[in-house]
Amino acid sequence: MKAAVIMGSKSDLPVLKPAIDTLRDFGIEVEAHIMSAHRTPELAADFAKNAKDNGVEVIIAAAGKAAHLAGVIAGHTILPVIGLPIKSSTMDGMDSLLSTVQMPEGIPVATVAINGGKNAALLAVQILALKYDTLSDLLYKFKEEMQLKVVAADAELKEELSK
Amino acid sequence: MKAAVIMGSKSDLPVLKPAIDTLRDFGIEVEAHIMSAHRTPELAADFAKNAKDNGVEVIIAAAGKAAHLAGVIAGHTILPVIGLPIKSSTMDGMDSLLSTVQMPEGIPVATVAINGGKNAALLAVQILALKYDTLSDLLYKFKEEMQLKVVAADAELKEELSK
Amino acid sequence: MKAAVIMGSKSDLPVLKPAIDTLRDFGIEVEAHIMSAHRTPELAADFAKNAKDNGVEVIIAAAGKAAHLAGVIAGHTILPVIGLPIKSSTMDGMDSLLSTVQMPEGIPVATVAINGGKNAALLAVQILALKYDTLSDLLYKFKEEMQLKVVAADAELKEELSK
Amino acid sequence: MKAAVIMGSKSDLPVLKPAIDTLRDFGIEVEAHIMSAHRTPELAADFAKNAKDNGVEVIIAAAGKAAHLAGVIAGHTILPVIGLPIKSSTMDGMDSLLSTVQMPEGIPVATVAINGGKNAALLAVQILALKYDTLSDLLYKFKEEMQLKVVAADAELKEELSK
Amino acid sequence: MKAAVIMGSKSDLPVLKPAIDTLRDFGIEVEAHIMSAHRTPELAADFAKNAKDNGVEVIIAAAGKAAHLAGVIAGHTILPVIGLPIKSSTMDGMDSLLSTVQMPEGIPVATVAINGGKNAALLAVQILALKYDTLSDLLYKFKEEMQLKVVAADAELKEELSK
Amino acid sequence: MKAAVIMGSKSDLPVLKPAIDTLRDFGIEVEAHIMSAHRTPELAADFAKNAKDNGVEVIIAAAGKAAHLAGVIAGHTILPVIGLPIKSSTMDGMDSLLSTVQMPEGIPVATVAINGGKNAALLAVQILALKYDTLSDLLYKFKEEMQLKVVAADAELKEELSK
Amino acid sequence: MKAAVIMGSKSDLPVLKPAIDTLRDFGIEVEAHIMSAHRTPELAADFAKNAKDNGVEVIIAAAGKAAHLAGVIAGHTILPVIGLPIKSSTMDGMDSLLSTVQMPEGIPVATVAINGGKNAALLAVQILALKYDTLSDLLYKFKEEMQLKVVAADAELKEELSK
Amino acid sequence: MKAAVIMGSKSDLPVLKPAIDTLRDFGIEVEAHIMSAHRTPELAADFAKNAKDNGVEVIIAAAGKAAHLAGVIAGHTILPVIGLPIKSSTMDGMDSLLSTVQMPEGIPVATVAINGGKNAALLAVQILALKYDTLSDLLYKFKEEMQLKVVAADAELKEELSK
Repeated sequence: MKAAVIMGSKSDLPVLKPAIDTLRDFGIEVEAHIMSAHRTPELAADFAKNAKDNGVEVIIAAAGKAAHLAGVIAGHTILPVIGLPIKSSTMDGMDSLLSTVQMPEGIPVATVAINGGKNAALLAVQILALKYDTLSDLLYKFKEEMQLKVVAADAELKEELSK
Repeated sequence: MKAAVIMGSKSDLPVLKPAIDTLRDFGIEVEAHIMSAHRTPELAADFAKNAKDNGVEVIIAAAGKAAHLAGVIAGHTILPVIGLPIKSSTMDGMDSLLSTVQMPEGIPVATVAINGGKNAALLAVQILALKYDTLSDLLYKFKEEMQLKVVAADAELKEELSK
Repeated sequence: MKAAVIMGSKSDLPVLKPAIDTLRDFGIEVEAHIMSAHRTPELAADFAKNAKDNGVEVIIAAAGKAAHLAGVIAGHTILPVIGLPIKSSTMDGMDSLLSTVQMPEGIPVATVAINGGKNAALLAVQILALKYDTLSDLLYKFKEEMQLKVVAADAELKEELSK
Repeated sequence: MKAAVIMGSKSDLPVLKPAIDTLRDFGIEVEAHIMSAHRTPELAADFAKNAKDNGVEVIIAAAGKAAHLAGVIAGHTILPVIGLPIKSSTMDGMDSLLSTVQMPEGIPVATVAINGGKNAALLAVQILALKYDTLSDLLYKFKEEMQLKVVAADAELKEELSK
Repeated sequence: MKAAVIMGSKSDLPVLKPAIDTLRDFGIEVEAHIMSAHRTPELAADFAKNAKDNGVEVIIAAAGKAAHLAGVIAGHTILPVIGLPIKSSTMDGMDSLLSTVQMPEGIPVATVAINGGKNAALLAVQILALKYDTLSDLLYKFKEEMQLKVVAADAELKEELSK
Repeated sequence: MKAAVIMGSKSDLPVLKPAIDTLRDFGIEVEAHIMSAHRTPELAADFAKNAKDNGVEVIIAAAGKAAHLAGVIAGHTILPVIGLPIKSSTMDGMDSLLSTVQMPEGIPVATVAINGGKNAALLAVQILALKYDTLSDLLYKFKEEMQLKVVAADAELKEELSK
Repeated sequence: MKAAVIMGSKSDLPVLKPAIDTLRDFGIEVEAHIMSAHRTPELAADFAKNAKDNGVEVIIAAAGKAAHLAGVIAGHTILPVIGLPIKSSTMDGMDSLLSTVQMPEGIPVATVAINGGKNAALLAVQILALKYDTLSDLLYKFKEEMQLKVVAADAELKEELSK
Repeated sequence: MKAAVIMGSKSDLPVLKPAIDTLRDFGIEVEAHIMSAHRTPELAADFAKNAKDNGVEVIIAAAGKAAHLAGVIAGHTILPVIGLPIKSSTMDGMDSLLSTVQMPEGIPVATVAINGGKNAALLAVQILALKYDTLSDLLYKFKEEMQLKVVAADAELKEELSK
């Protein structure tokens, strides 16, 4: 089980780190790259063209502003590409979101919420779980734990409000 | 290979029909349902909870306005859920897009472009191709045909402009 | 007189606390819960289905991002549901607002301003006042006090500017 | 049981007619007025100040562009005021929505979707149902019929797709 | 020469203070009030109805969020009303701007930039200058000084860059 | 009494015609020009610099897209400049509105609603009425007629709904 | 003198045709291609890498939705790339504009107005005029003709209004 | 080789400084001016009209809010004008972007990203490189260094993640 996590710049790492950690928590091998659709287009194209042969099964691509990285990679592969829009210093993430999600017919990008690093990873896990049954079990466990956290927070709230 | 295509209302069918047709072109069995996160919440929950056991491997959920359908279904399953925002009569699709893509941590929805029915299907095919190799071959063929169409359009353009 | 105040996450409490305090100031019993349309969908559905039988008369539901909580609860009850959009770290509250207010035909959500916790409570009081006359008197008093505060601020302003 | 339906201009009637019809279907007496927060401010103030004494129990106020009507009426009454933003020829309803929903602290307006006439009425019914039990029964019936329509549309879809 | 400066809340004063100071710098008498279209609607209406008789010749009205104050005052007077949208904690001023500027036919509001306190005052001066010639001379002088400041800043820039 | 009405292109005339007609209805002399901040910048500058000397007392400037006309004219005159944003084929008028209203400190533009031709004229009349008392009387009459029209529409509505 | 005009799809031709015609009117050789950043990424990369050697001196790249074409081409060349955002069926051109203009540091795209085909061509002419003096003369003539058209439209307006 | 860098106010310098430095790094002579389309319109017009004769070959014009500077300068010259939208305290740069890019037919402005000072300079270099071959070599070198930086960041990332 292998996922690739691609980011346009090292400044995107704080959003991507939770994605990498989550993938590893699920036992998925991660290869991470910094590459740019504009500054290193050939590296990006080479990566994307060979990703499947190199054992990558799903790709997470994160970028900000005119966020072309996910779309460009999707143009070079048939693997599912998860687009993660990064909020930059202007436009509150709207530019990244629209640049990532509004892909033309023929080349989809599976877009998650702005700065939603962890969700990008969880989507990758859900996709891989189609093939790897052990991930399904882990996802059910993850959902349960998430529920327990909500229930615990609810209890805490009630305690707090009853004071 | 089975995908489910869910829509909030029958008026969404013109956007969903290309999705259904594309899935079938790839030889994927499609079960289609009209169900609503708000009007038939229990049907939607039941569908989502049992989808995996019923052999569904990926779900496309389309809705407009405050488009909760994809998110609600994603809350009840570990299958990958593809969200398809539908443009309605106001807000130019922005409400549907934000309601679909901006999911909170823990429950991702793989969002495609507003009204991007065909892309939702292609994303589903890419996801299923991880498990079913024959789909990979078909996706490569699809990409090639897409390229040939662009090349043909380019030839046509040159002809037209040379007149 | 009983209102329920529901939030998607404990981080929403700073916006909800003024709502809870206001309701209590009007003598309304408050039951508060943390529950999520996506992480604990069954708890949310159970709560909503039984709220009326449990004596709840109006529900305030607050959530951020793709804010489905109010809409999902409204799908399961005939009680009036007040939606309170919470501003999160991107999109300046626009995603929460549109996800809350743009409900499809058949399932209204009574939406108040982004982060407008106190107004959500006052709307609940106005609704309950239809049935409980004592609340009407308190609302008139509240309006008067609000006017007096404006008048006092006006006097203060004049003092300040005349220096 | 009496509701008032107020609109800023007669051109808003196509959006308000479904509201009036829905209220009447539930057996609620409707008084409808055209009045403007800007062109007939005194009529609007007089209406709002006397609405409660005149037996009105909930008010629906619809307006477009800089939609002040609902807010202005809410300033003069303690009755719940439902704001219905109307889409006009520019800005796709965004101006009406923000002008209606973003009310300052102290004066809530219960805002529904842009052009959501029927939902404004249903919200009014839900509010009145707190006091009038017969409306609760009718609302449950309405919900059931809505579900049956979705189920019927679902059956129709399946028929159509199986051809 | 008299202008009125109206604000919805004392928290708007930092934006209004430059307006008041500018008006006074031009020798214009200022009466300032805090009043609210929603919390003190009758005070606002009374002010507006009597402003002309009280010698007010132009009104600046500032408010944030669903900014109805300028529009409501304009409904009660034939004096020119300058609307000053105030940015509040959400929506980056867009709600205030649209609520102020998008007035329906018949009741204009002369809207200036978000948080543009000084420009609101300068517009008032330009309007009063139609009647009071001395203001024209002062406006020409103001324009000249503004030009000199730009020229000085330009010189400073050149100095700085030549280092 | 003289107003100038300036438009960037003849295609703006449908929005400006109601402005010109309204000004003439109030007995105000109108000089109308097509001139462009970008295509005929010197004509625009000459017009603006000489407008006051030529007896113009208020200027209405209308333009679409990156609507610079009002701002550029305001840079060359101390007369009040009313900016009228025109909706063009993209962006729903948002570009024109922001380009017109968001003027930097020192050079205000009195902006009215997108495509609000008539309101631009009424604002001009209100401004001129400071100096010309007869206009005040006409404005009071105009307000009364506007009220009567609303009252008549209200009567018509009641007739229609009672059928 | 040679410019390249690239479009993502043949449906963009109506916006590009005025660009091609304008370039030819100025005596500039045009090579036009349909190629896609996503469907034919290698053709696009090859074109961009070789454009300079093939005598192309400036490139106009037009695309809609998540408009990556201009940015992707700019990544492969040092020629100036003019980005022309095309309005598609949703989002009113905002997605295309932001995807084209918000390029990350290092790879600029010279963006013109949404659907501004003619302006894209004029910008190309201005750029080429740095090197080819004859174009400067033609640009001066073009500006003059544009002015004469405004003056003629102004005369026509005056005639029309004086009737 | 000479470029002019124009800004509307000295507060824009932090965004412009990287532009000036980049131009100088490429050996391009820079003349910088503070001038305003509104406060010093005649200086701006004079500058623009004479720029070509004064040896300027490309102009970068930066401004915020209703950013008219680039457009106004473009009206007075046939030189290519690069528009640099500056983010100010409200509207997140959207007002500056739309005011700069949405130019009417006939007068293009080559717009770069909001606050994209360095990209404005690089675009100017690309334009000048058409005429000055030495700049082409420097641009290739710049692209290579940019690639090397990405490659180095990628190596650093891998090091960091392998810990």
